[in-house]
Amino acid sequence: MDNNKIIIFDTTLRDGEQSPGASMNTEEKIQIALQLDRLGVDVMEAGFAAASAGDFDAINQIAKEVDYIRVCSLARAVDKDIKAAGEAVANARNKRIHTFIATSPIHMEYKLKMTPDEVIKRAVHAVEYAKSFVDDVEFSCEDAGRTEINFMKEIVDAVIKAGATTINLPDTVGYRLPSELYDMIKQMYKFIDGRAVISVHNHNDLGLATANSLACIQAGARQVECTINGLGERAGNAALEEIVMAIKTRQDIFAPLYTNIVCKEIYPSSRLVASITGIEPQPNKAIVGKNAFAHESGIHQDGMLKHAKTYEIISAEDIGLEKNSLVLGKHSGRHAFKDRLSSLGYDLEASEIDKAFEKFKDLADRKKDIFDDDLRALVADEIIKIHKAYEIVTLSTNGCNKGHASASLTIRHNDELISDSALGNGTVDALFKTIDRISGIHGNLKDYHVNAVSQGKDALAKVVVKVQFDGDNAVIGHGLDLDTMLATAKAYVGALNSHILMKKQINK
Amino acid sequence: MDNNKIIIFDTTLRDGEQSPGASMNTEEKIQIALQLDRLGVDVMEAGFAAASAGDFDAINQIAKEVDYIRVCSLARAVDKDIKAAGEAVANARNKRIHTFIATSPIHMEYKLKMTPDEVIKRAVHAVEYAKSFVDDVEFSCEDAGRTEINFMKEIVDAVIKAGATTINLPDTVGYRLPSELYDMIKQMYKFIDGRAVISVHNHNDLGLATANSLACIQAGARQVECTINGLGERAGNAALEEIVMAIKTRQDIFAPLYTNIVCKEIYPSSRLVASITGIEPQPNKAIVGKNAFAHESGIHQDGMLKHAKTYEIISAEDIGLEKNSLVLGKHSGRHAFKDRLSSLGYDLEASEIDKAFEKFKDLADRKKDIFDDDLRALVADEIIKIHKAYEIVTLSTNGCNKGHASASLTIRHNDELISDSALGNGTVDALFKTIDRISGIHGNLKDYHVNAVSQGKDALAKVVVKVQFDGDNAVIGHGLDLDTMLATAKAYVGALNSHILMKKQINK
Repeated sequence: MDNNKIIIFDTTLRDGEQSPGASMNTEEKIQIALQLDRLGVDVMEAGFAAASAGDFDAINQIAKEVDYIRVCSLARAVDKDIKAAGEAVANARNKRIHTFIATSPIHMEYKLKMTPDEVIKRAVHAVEYAKSFVDDVEFSCEDAGRTEINFMKEIVDAVIKAGATTINLPDTVGYRLPSELYDMIKQMYKFIDGRAVISVHNHNDLGLATANSLACIQAGARQVECTINGLGERAGNAALEEIVMAIKTRQDIFAPLYTNIVCKEIYPSSRLVASITGIEPQPNKAIVGKNAFAHESGIHQDGMLKHAKTYEIISAEDIGLEKNSLVLGKHSGRHAFKDRLSSLGYDLEASEIDKAFEKFKDLADRKKDIFDDDLRALVADEIIKIHKAYEIVTLSTNGCNKGHASASLTIRHNDELISDSALGNGTVDALFKTIDRISGIHGNLKDYHVNAVSQGKDALAKVVVKVQFDGDNAVIGHGLDLDTMLATAKAYVGALNSHILMKKQINK
Repeated sequence: MDNNKIIIFDTTLRDGEQSPGASMNTEEKIQIALQLDRLGVDVMEAGFAAASAGDFDAINQIAKEVDYIRVCSLARAVDKDIKAAGEAVANARNKRIHTFIATSPIHMEYKLKMTPDEVIKRAVHAVEYAKSFVDDVEFSCEDAGRTEINFMKEIVDAVIKAGATTINLPDTVGYRLPSELYDMIKQMYKFIDGRAVISVHNHNDLGLATANSLACIQAGARQVECTINGLGERAGNAALEEIVMAIKTRQDIFAPLYTNIVCKEIYPSSRLVASITGIEPQPNKAIVGKNAFAHESGIHQDGMLKHAKTYEIISAEDIGLEKNSLVLGKHSGRHAFKDRLSSLGYDLEASEIDKAFEKFKDLADRKKDIFDDDLRALVADEIIKIHKAYEIVTLSTNGCNKGHASASLTIRHNDELISDSALGNGTVDALFKTIDRISGIHGNLKDYHVNAVSQGKDALAKVVVKVQFDGDNAVIGHGLDLDTMLATAKAYVGALNSHILMKKQINK
C-alpha cells in the first residue's frame, strides 16, 4: 500500500443523510454516488443497510451501478445489521462492511449497558462475522474521542486479530482540539504499527472538524471520513472539500501526502448535493460557498487587479467553478447541449437527454440567458424524478392584500383529472390547501424555501418544501420553474409523491 | 490588565459587512451594535469611517448610542482615513482607532508598491497621528500570515514605540494551519514581552479560522477578532460563537482563560444578524445552525434519551436557544408582549413597542401560534425601517401555468397614489415589473430568497431580495408577511427605498 495516499472515505449518503431534512430517495442517491465516483472518492459509505428497506435498496442499487469506487455499508455490531450490510454491498466490484460499537465509558454505561469485556467480545464477533461476507472490514470505536486510551488499544488489538483492516477512531461528539487528537492518533499509530489503516471521522460541533482531520493526518491517519458540504448529524462532519483543498494548497507542509480527488469535480459535487438535499452551504462556507471567491471591498478588489495572489490562495477554476458562465441559448443544438451536460458531470441515458433537451428548449423560449446553474437545477429537478402519483395539469392563483387569496388546480392522479380550489392566508397557503383537498392527504408544512437559481428577474425559482403527511416522517419536495407559484405547487406535489413512494417501499 | 481574559473584538459591522450582499443601513447597524453590547463584546469595529458618508454616519451614531462597549473604526495608514476614524468615534465613551498597512512581500511589492522602510515610516506616522485623537490605538500588519518574521518584529517594535497598545497579526488570506500560527504568535509574544496586547484575525478560506484562533490564544494572543455567524470577506472570519463556546466547553484545557461573553445572547445575536443581512447560517453550522442541536438518527435519539451527554457537549439552552418556544397568542396583552421582546433582547422605545404590538395583534388575528422566531422577524422587519419613499397600498396578482401572470399595485409616493399593472413570466416577475413601472426606476434582480420563519402552512414568509437599481450598487430589501407574494412586493419596495436613501446620503 502507498503510505503517502490519503484515502478519502465519503459518508454523504450515510452520515450526511442523517442531517435533518436531507433524506433522499434511491434515484437521488444513485446520482450522488455516480458523482462521487467521478470526484475520485476512494470509499463511499452508501447507507446503513439495516436501517430500513429503502436504505437497503439504495445501497444494493448503487453497488450495481458504480464501477471501481469501493461501496460500504454501516452496521452495528449485531448479526442482523452485518448480514444486511453484506447482502446490500454483495454486487459491488469493491466492497466493505463498516461495523462499530461505542467504547467510551459514558456510552458503554448508559447507552449499551455493557461491560468493557462484553464490548470487546461483541466487537470481535462482529468483525469475524463481517469477514464471512467481505475481505475488507472497517471497525469503529464509536466516541473514540472520549475513550480511555488503554481500553482503545485493547479492543483495537482484538479486532485487528479478528481481521479488521481499517480502524476508525471518531470524535463522535466533536469535542476534541487538534492538538489532543494529534496526540491520540500518534499513540495509536505507534501501537497499531502498520497492521491496519487508521481512519478518522470528526464532527464539527465546535467548528474544528477540518483542523482536527488535518492534525490526525499529520499524526499518521491515512483515511479521513468526510462529507460534501460538511453535511451530517448536528453541526455536520468534516467537509471533504476543505480537507482536500488544504492538503493541495499546503503541499509545502503535506507533501508527499496526496489524495486522488479530481478537484475540478468539487464544485459540481457540491451543487448536486445542495440541489438534491435542499441544504445550501452558507455564502461564507469555505471553498464552496457562493462568496468564497467574491471580493467586495474596494481595497481587496484593487489588490486582486494588481496581483491575484494578494487575496486569493485558491483559484475558482481549481475547484471547477466557472463564474456563472453563459452557456447556451435558444439556438443551441442537441449536440452542444449534450456536451455541456457531460462537462457538468451528468451521465444521462439517451432518453433522459431527450427529455432534458425538451425542457431546455422550453426554458430557452422563456429565458434569454441560460447559465450552468440553470442547467444543473434543470437536470436535478426534471430528470431525477420519482414515480409521479400526482401531476399538475393546470394551475391558477389569485392574490391580494385585502381579503383571501385563492388557488385552483387540476391534477392528474391514476389517469384521472381532479380539479378543486381553496382559499388561503396568501397564495402559497391557498395552493397547499387545494392540493390537500385533491389528494385527501393532510400535509403539515415543516419548512419552505425559495432560491433564485441564477440572476435577473427571469431567473428560475427553486423551491424546497419539507412536509409531514398524515403524521409520518417528513419528506422533501423540489420544484423548479420561472414562476415561483408553479414551482411551489410542484415542490409540494413532489413531496406528496415521495411520501407515497416511501409508504409503498415500507409495505413491500 | 487581567492576563487571563480573552478580549472579544467583533467586526461583524466592518469585515462582516464586506460579505457580498451584507450591506446594512444605519438603523440596522445600530440594532446590531446594541445587541453586541448585550452580548458582552469588549471591542466593536463599527465600520471603516473613510469608506463612505454612510459608514461614517453609522459609526458616529453608534458611538452616541452605546454605553461601555469600546467603539472602533478601521483606517488605512493615511491621514484622511485616520482623521475620519477619529471624528467618527469621538462621541463614544470608550473608543479606539484601528490602523493597518500590509507587511507581506507580495502586498508591499504589488499592492502598495513601497519598500519595507517606507512601510515602517508610514506605519509609525499613522500610529502617532491616531494617538492625537485617541489613547487606544490598534495596529495591524495586514497579511501577517505571509510576512517575514524579522520584518514583522521590526515594524511591531516601531509602532509600539509610537504608542500602539494592541498589535493585530491577521492571517488575511486564510492560508495558515494552527500549528504554524501557534509558532508565529509564540515568537511574537516573546518578542513583544507584554508591551502590547497581541490580537489575531483569522480568515476561513480553508475552514480553519476557529482552530487557528484557538491555537493563537494558546500561544499568548489575548484578543481575537471575529464575527457573528462567521460573516466576512470571501469564506468569512472566525465565528465568535465557535471561539467562545470552545473556550467555555473546554475549560479543562483553557482555564484560567475566559471571555466576558454572555452566552445566552449568542443565539439571539445570530438570529438578529441573519435576519438583517439576509445571510442565513447553513443548517449544519456549528453552534448556531438550525440542526446544531437536532438528532436525526434512531441510534442518536436513543442515546440522548438515555443520557444527554452521549451525543451533546453543549446544551441548546446554554446559547439562549429555547427550542421554538410557543410564546404568545391573540389574547396576550401588551405587558406580556413587552416582557417577551425584552427577554429576546430587544431594547425598543415606547412608540416602537406600540407599533410592534399593533403588528403583533394583526399577525395574531391571522396566525394561531406565534413563536419567538416570528417575533424576531416581526421586530427586525417592521420596526427597523428606513424612511419609506414608496409604500404598498393595495396588491393583487393573477397566476396560471398557461399564458401570462399579471400583477396590479397601488403605491403611495410623496402622498400621491399611483396604480399600474404589468404582465410577467410568473407572478414574482409581474410584481417586480409593476413596481418598476410605478417608480420609473429600473431594477435588475441579483438574488431572491424566501424562507419560512417558523413551521406550518401559516408560517410567516421572510423574503430577501438583492436589486441593482439604475446600475448603482446593489441594495438589499426585506419583506415579511403571511402571504409570500405580499412579502415579495414589500421586499422589492424596501430595496427601492434603501436605494433612494443611499442616493440621498451620498448627495448630502
